[in-house]
Amino acid sequence: MQLGMIGLGRMGGNIVRRLTRAGHHCVVYDRNAAAVTELAGEGSTGASGLADLVAKLDAPRVVWVMLPAGAPTESTIQELSGLMKPGDIIIDGGNTFYKDDIRRGAALKEKGIHYVDVGTSGGVWGLERGYCMMIGGAKEAVDHIDPILAALAPGIGSIERTPGRQGRDPRPEMGYIHTGPIGSGHFVKMVHNGIEYGLMQAYAEGFDILKNKSSEALPENERYTLDMADIAEVWRRGSVISSWLLDLTAQALAEDSSLKDYPGEVADSGEGRWTINAAIEEAVPAEVLTAALFARFRSRLSHTFGEKLLSAMRFKFGGHTEFKLKD
Amino acid sequence: MQLGMIGLGRMGGNIVRRLTRAGHHCVVYDRNAAAVTELAGEGSTGASGLADLVAKLDAPRVVWVMLPAGAPTESTIQELSGLMKPGDIIIDGGNTFYKDDIRRGAALKEKGIHYVDVGTSGGVWGLERGYCMMIGGAKEAVDHIDPILAALAPGIGSIERTPGRQGRDPRPEMGYIHTGPIGSGHFVKMVHNGIEYGLMQAYAEGFDILKNKSSEALPENERYTLDMADIAEVWRRGSVISSWLLDLTAQALAEDSSLKDYPGEVADSGEGRWTINAAIEEAVPAEVLTAALFARFRSRLSHTFGEKLLSAMRFKFGGHTEFKLKD
Amino acid sequence: MQLGMIGLGRMGGNIVRRLTRAGHHCVVYDRNAAAVTELAGEGSTGASGLADLVAKLDAPRVVWVMLPAGAPTESTIQELSGLMKPGDIIIDGGNTFYKDDIRRGAALKEKGIHYVDVGTSGGVWGLERGYCMMIGGAKEAVDHIDPILAALAPGIGSIERTPGRQGRDPRPEMGYIHTGPIGSGHFVKMVHNGIEYGLMQAYAEGFDILKNKSSEALPENERYTLDMADIAEVWRRGSVISSWLLDLTAQALAEDSSLKDYPGEVADSGEGRWTINAAIEEAVPAEVLTAALFARFRSRLSHTFGEKLLSAMRFKFGGHTEFKLKD
Amino acid sequence: MQLGMIGLGRMGGNIVRRLTRAGHHCVVYDRNAAAVTELAGEGSTGASGLADLVAKLDAPRVVWVMLPAGAPTESTIQELSGLMKPGDIIIDGGNTFYKDDIRRGAALKEKGIHYVDVGTSGGVWGLERGYCMMIGGAKEAVDHIDPILAALAPGIGSIERTPGRQGRDPRPEMGYIHTGPIGSGHFVKMVHNGIEYGLMQAYAEGFDILKNKSSEALPENERYTLDMADIAEVWRRGSVISSWLLDLTAQALAEDSSLKDYPGEVADSGEGRWTINAAIEEAVPAEVLTAALFARFRSRLSHTFGEKLLSAMRFKFGGHTEFKLKD
Repeated sequence: MQLGMIGLGRMGGNIVRRLTRAGHHCVVYDRNAAAVTELAGEGSTGASGLADLVAKLDAPRVVWVMLPAGAPTESTIQELSGLMKPGDIIIDGGNTFYKDDIRRGAALKEKGIHYVDVGTSGGVWGLERGYCMMIGGAKEAVDHIDPILAALAPGIGSIERTPGRQGRDPRPEMGYIHTGPIGSGHFVKMVHNGIEYGLMQAYAEGFDILKNKSSEALPENERYTLDMADIAEVWRRGSVISSWLLDLTAQALAEDSSLKDYPGEVADSGEGRWTINAAIEEAVPAEVLTAALFARFRSRLSHTFGEKLLSAMRFKFGGHTEFKLKD
Repeated sequence: MQLGMIGLGRMGGNIVRRLTRAGHHCVVYDRNAAAVTELAGEGSTGASGLADLVAKLDAPRVVWVMLPAGAPTESTIQELSGLMKPGDIIIDGGNTFYKDDIRRGAALKEKGIHYVDVGTSGGVWGLERGYCMMIGGAKEAVDHIDPILAALAPGIGSIERTPGRQGRDPRPEMGYIHTGPIGSGHFVKMVHNGIEYGLMQAYAEGFDILKNKSSEALPENERYTLDMADIAEVWRRGSVISSWLLDLTAQALAEDSSLKDYPGEVADSGEGRWTINAAIEEAVPAEVLTAALFARFRSRLSHTFGEKLLSAMRFKFGGHTEFKLKD
Repeated sequence: MQLGMIGLGRMGGNIVRRLTRAGHHCVVYDRNAAAVTELAGEGSTGASGLADLVAKLDAPRVVWVMLPAGAPTESTIQELSGLMKPGDIIIDGGNTFYKDDIRRGAALKEKGIHYVDVGTSGGVWGLERGYCMMIGGAKEAVDHIDPILAALAPGIGSIERTPGRQGRDPRPEMGYIHTGPIGSGHFVKMVHNGIEYGLMQAYAEGFDILKNKSSEALPENERYTLDMADIAEVWRRGSVISSWLLDLTAQALAEDSSLKDYPGEVADSGEGRWTINAAIEEAVPAEVLTAALFARFRSRLSHTFGEKLLSAMRFKFGGHTEFKLKD
Repeated sequence: MQLGMIGLGRMGGNIVRRLTRAGHHCVVYDRNAAAVTELAGEGSTGASGLADLVAKLDAPRVVWVMLPAGAPTESTIQELSGLMKPGDIIIDGGNTFYKDDIRRGAALKEKGIHYVDVGTSGGVWGLERGYCMMIGGAKEAVDHIDPILAALAPGIGSIERTPGRQGRDPRPEMGYIHTGPIGSGHFVKMVHNGIEYGLMQAYAEGFDILKNKSSEALPENERYTLDMADIAEVWRRGSVISSWLLDLTAQALAEDSSLKDYPGEVADSGEGRWTINAAIEEAVPAEVLTAALFARFRSRLSHTFGEKLLSAMRFKFGGHTEFKLKD
């Protein structure tokens, strides 16, 4: 089927490519004209702006917005909503906060325009592996765009089937899911990312403990110099903790087990933060996910003010003079 | 080759079976005579006690002890050490604390007996999937038992190869690793379990946040009733957080997404605790692994004394009378 | 000076009493007529409603709203804003979220009405001990109500002076502070409560470790049966961890060191939650304050869904059959 | 009464001074002869070594060892045990691990020598304020040294009495406590320090959140530039979170609210670590105390290996090229 795509970055561009390969046709736009030209050369129709893109689509129009969450997505959808007609569908495939989806969906509903939020996981691997998608929106809209979703999803592949799914919605086994009303797709994707932080931090701490087992602070007969790369590799087979993140870890460590080229200042996206906010709203204890987020915050700092305060208190009550720089 | 196996529980019994299938021959013993009889019926040689088992093995004897860590393993190895000869090999395949390995290994070395510690992951799935093994000990001993290890390990299987491993020790790709001196196998297995706790807790918290998104404490238009089973399933394909633990989660949720038959009182083994002790010894911050352990502690309690103390403080400073039962 | 007080609960009523004792005069209103009558009997002027209260005040009118945060405060200030005149001052002494202050302050500013937010600590002890107050708002408004603030504050008292405060604003030593623009008073009070949670949880965990030192799970020669009440008492003198919360702890434990009348289901207010949200917005790692909040969440639950999921995973990978209820 | 003191550092020296002021007489020894000379000049009797010190004491001899925990204390007590006689008393006033106390106490008991462990809080303030002491040992030994303990303790002072302590052991109100058998004094002191870490971290995080409220990452109308020193001061009066640690914080901030002279690399002693080990042994969830310890570990590191691993994973799954240094 036909799809308009706004935003041709790494994610948007590859989504268009995967759809084109599957026989769908895309009308594409990006502020960066070169990106438009490139995809036009691969079989898509280029557009010169939002109005042109909308004009080149048949009703009911389906437009996928794949832009950074926040202002860029907000203003684009705002403008689109003035160009599109009742029965049309706007898809937000970015990392939008789900409460923004709810607000936008309500506003678009008044104009008769459908809004579908698609949380999209897959990163740079999606073009080949397919995208895992979590989709919120009205049933009729989600059903209408099913050919697109099915083409983007990984499909069943060689992954073993889960017993006991007979009679269930087949889409999750294909790698996409209609999670519920507007916003629920991004909500589920948000929690997905929160879990991702937790999993990553669990591996990070474990390897840290392995690495520091050679520390000279330990008794000499209790030190081990362990091979990080081989350990990551061995855990990929038959162990309880095998995962795709471990596969990637094994790759990175096989290249250079010192990881010296990685600075260790770890960014976080809105989704990790919103997950904790959601946990707090729901009064769900979420120690691990929060600790993973805070570890990232701390990784980007030289020292916190709080740590200086600890030094100051120690200096004041214990005369720990070593803790005052200029004493 | 030939192996003596002491302890024919779920782990020991299946290890014998996997070895037998691979053409190795086992002499087996267990306090439970029925277990011995059963495996004798499957091609092993039964033994009536440790002395009998040792007597039935050719030198250099290799005996695998697969018993609960602590007293049972300790006393068995103690007794074995009096029965075996210089050049023989004792393997501890249980979940022994690595400092106990170091102590034992030193004692056995004085008698010329080799000690090899094998951390074994695989659980009830090991018979079919193979066991992921982390092995500490002297090179000559570990090399000697390589046929057994190779037979127990999962092998390369269908798992994608990690790029950049050319020229490296091939064993980790087969699912087993010689991690270093005595104790290092159990140390690495210990950290493996610590990571396991962290990963499990990350999923647990994420699904908790999904589940409670239907809570009536939330604004009505922000509630979603999400399908836990379908979400677990969709994340298995193309998402960053796919893993074997997620596969199992998807199975459990497909059977009954309420999980009502699971009590939620979660046991912990020594390995989770020792991992945190190791982190503390090394001064490695390990928030996530620790939080995962503490969540298990808390899961088994109705209330902590600490929580009662919080209520008491609140009552004292705020007159929160609702917090005193008999007021 | 003259003050209108809306909300005569425990906090509002005692604030009126403390002001009355200091020679100020209050016009008071509460939905509960009995509360109005009671305070009228103690020297205040009763009002029959907001309009009546406003009418009984001289310009520039100063009205203190002491109601539950959220809807009650919001609607009252909404109504007040229609009754008051340019130059008048509305004080919100409740536990309002500081972003609501900012919004309200901006709306009232358009009408020429001052808005002052007062974070008030002191609880049931405030009438005698005085209230510690954190105040946000325009300088001229805060200065105007200074006589009221000074009367409510604890004053210097017998607490030792902090060296090096010569030349500084004297108000903090009296127990009140002008923290900055609108909202900053509630923001500082919010963080105060976040710290309070952390401090309380630190004591709670420590006493928990003391209490469980008699556990039969420990080796017999390492068990101690410790006297919780005496330990709390001894720490009050000369130790690094003496505090007012410890004083209260010592009182509760002296009454009954088993704390058996306290249920241990610990409520949390918005302020603890907002503190963590603020930390996340600022990318400040705040492990301790967050853990304290989550411990309260967990204290109110029998089991989390997450814990059931842990049991389910253990059952699936390890055949831990003891963890399925109906197996 | 008479006391032998070994170790005349800041703690030992001031203990001698406080005892001397109270009319007790000390025989003193330190490896550093100057320290001996100094205290001899203040009324104590100097000794040239352990044997000399023991020889100068009347039976039953009481010797207080005030040395760094671990090897120095261990070897000194070892040597002392050969010099002292049945009925004599050795006091370990340092920060010894309580399991070492138990071991030592059992060994000394065989020689008829009493062992008393005294956990001592007070730091550089102890000389004037008195020392809060937690004491483990046999009743007869603890009773024998009561005059010394009473002289060192802060006494009731001006601190308000806790209601309901009538009929209880009066010593805790004086600032010292007989906690139980050998080791229990150090155990309680250990937990005291664990709580101390938690309290300190709670303040540290709170002030961090206050400090970063001026961050440019926040919306401009939600930023506040708060006065750290004044806020610490105001909380000292009438607030729920007033404490001695807050008093010290207020002092440090009054001197320089930027704390720029404090490096923020925060040491930890064994006691903080042992507290967490104890929590784990008892299966007590102790999130806050652990997080406080881990924050100190992290404060001393530039980056953890774990953080580099997070960067590596992000690079691998997301192509976050900014996270590889040399790309």
